[in-house]
Amino acid sequence: MSLKEIARLLAEKDNFFLATHVNPDGDGIGSLLALTLALKAQGKIVWPYLSDQIPDFLDWLPGKELIRYELPEGGNWTAIVLDCGAASRLGDKAGPWVQGLSQVIVLDHHEVSGTLGTTRYVEITFATAAIVFKLLGQMGISLTKEIATNLYVAIFSDTGGFRYQQTTAETFSMAQKLIESGVNPSEVAQRLTENFPLSRFCLLKKALSRLELKASGKVAISYLSSDDYLSCEAGKADSDDFATMFRTIRGVEVSALIKEYKPGEVTVSLRSRGHVNVAELAAHFGGGGHRFAAGFRTKGDISEIQQQLTRKLEALFS
Amino acid sequence: MSLKEIARLLAEKDNFFLATHVNPDGDGIGSLLALTLALKAQGKIVWPYLSDQIPDFLDWLPGKELIRYELPEGGNWTAIVLDCGAASRLGDKAGPWVQGLSQVIVLDHHEVSGTLGTTRYVEITFATAAIVFKLLGQMGISLTKEIATNLYVAIFSDTGGFRYQQTTAETFSMAQKLIESGVNPSEVAQRLTENFPLSRFCLLKKALSRLELKASGKVAISYLSSDDYLSCEAGKADSDDFATMFRTIRGVEVSALIKEYKPGEVTVSLRSRGHVNVAELAAHFGGGGHRFAAGFRTKGDISEIQQQLTRKLEALFS
Repeated sequence: MSLKEIARLLAEKDNFFLATHVNPDGDGIGSLLALTLALKAQGKIVWPYLSDQIPDFLDWLPGKELIRYELPEGGNWTAIVLDCGAASRLGDKAGPWVQGLSQVIVLDHHEVSGTLGTTRYVEITFATAAIVFKLLGQMGISLTKEIATNLYVAIFSDTGGFRYQQTTAETFSMAQKLIESGVNPSEVAQRLTENFPLSRFCLLKKALSRLELKASGKVAISYLSSDDYLSCEAGKADSDDFATMFRTIRGVEVSALIKEYKPGEVTVSLRSRGHVNVAELAAHFGGGGHRFAAGFRTKGDISEIQQQLTRKLEALFS
Repeated sequence: MSLKEIARLLAEKDNFFLATHVNPDGDGIGSLLALTLALKAQGKIVWPYLSDQIPDFLDWLPGKELIRYELPEGGNWTAIVLDCGAASRLGDKAGPWVQGLSQVIVLDHHEVSGTLGTTRYVEITFATAAIVFKLLGQMGISLTKEIATNLYVAIFSDTGGFRYQQTTAETFSMAQKLIESGVNPSEVAQRLTENFPLSRFCLLKKALSRLELKASGKVAISYLSSDDYLSCEAGKADSDDFATMFRTIRGVEVSALIKEYKPGEVTVSLRSRGHVNVAELAAHFGGGGHRFAAGFRTKGDISEIQQQLTRKLEALFS
């Protein structure tokens, strides 16, 4: 179904249940809220649902007070699923519930999406928000500052602030129109990228103090123990971008960060500049991901995991 | 003089001496090389001059092999000065030499520019490259990938990757056209933001280990001694973005980094989220800058400077 046909379908319906994936990100929540505000402007009843709490760095988005954390009771809902295409990605509660509805529209931009939905629109593009942007055009919605800000945040998030591979001329063309609709780009950037808790810098100091280069400088590896998270009063999210940061070291092809959130429970993040496919490395340890970013979970002793991983990484470059 | 008139003036001349400020940045060098390549495409003789070596992170720009580090001998040169408007900013050699020429065109985007030039075009905009972009349009130059990449790097640098205050809808509109002319945005971003020497992370660890919050968390302050630069085998540029990084701590309004490059010679970088004007603070110590970023140089003992500065900073928030 084309976006034009989906716009016509939406015009016929009155009650919308909107959802995105678990651990929702900027693209998922931004797309959800932009479409919520647009449908409400057309007089529709909208139930924007999240299975997980909105993350701190997005807890200022226009319309976030509309978000519901529980499912509706009864009602004749048309579901719109954003930024994913499989029931399992909606969580234990919403997944089965959405599968029980007679009309489910999926809007997704992922190559591996799923089969959920009575109507599916999947376009491999830089963000689900790009699809929502075009859908709003078909719906004849004029972009308010509130709608535009949600779309801008979504696009900024999924393109790494216009820096990732999927960034195109169209990304910039949309950003231009969103700014013309009232978005303040520096304010958004500051909210998204300049709002780190002090605990993150405490963790960073520890991760830096254990940073080692291997394989003639092609591999960067470090670790954080559960004691580190405790003593820094830090949460999981605080170390989210460290592996990516260590990939920025000149000459480094692959970076790895071993994170023990709880004693014995270890998550490993792998990042690559692209010459090595870290998804394959992660798969060896039972994990997944893609060429540039992948990871796996395991149990055991950090130093043993580090030794195993280092051996594997050194073998890649020997 | 309008850009249209400047384009007409350039068409009449054959020999161009191009220069930008000392400690040249992405906007200065990108604008210089873009205009060099454009003028050469028109069959002109061009002498693109830098007083300082091109920094490592820009040492891949298309056309960089054309750069001259010495002044020409004789010849009937028309000078084009980019990204600054005062002879003093061109360095000890080029400054007086340019002042001796009969035709000097200044293209600058700074609020405080200077009085250099027989023809001055100063537009307060997000980058000097934005002026060059429009000038090339007036000159009827078609954007090659090489020219476009230089302009994109310049715009990316001066807007902090589309994140600073001066970023506008026009910034994105230009970026779109530059990508349509062949720029690879993710490749540029990777070259500009993912190419740090290991020495930078060694310094960062030291700066983080001395990071202190003052004034109920509104001030972040740290220092690096000449011993740190030595033991990390680090250069000045390695700590360039630390003050900006410390401003990203939640709740911090002003950040300060005290850097002793050589024993007793101290440079202080100040960053603000905008509520406090750090240019005023820097002026108190004999320095300058603007509301968001300022600095000053001084001589003396780091810990005494830190105490003085901390007292001033605490007073701002008391």
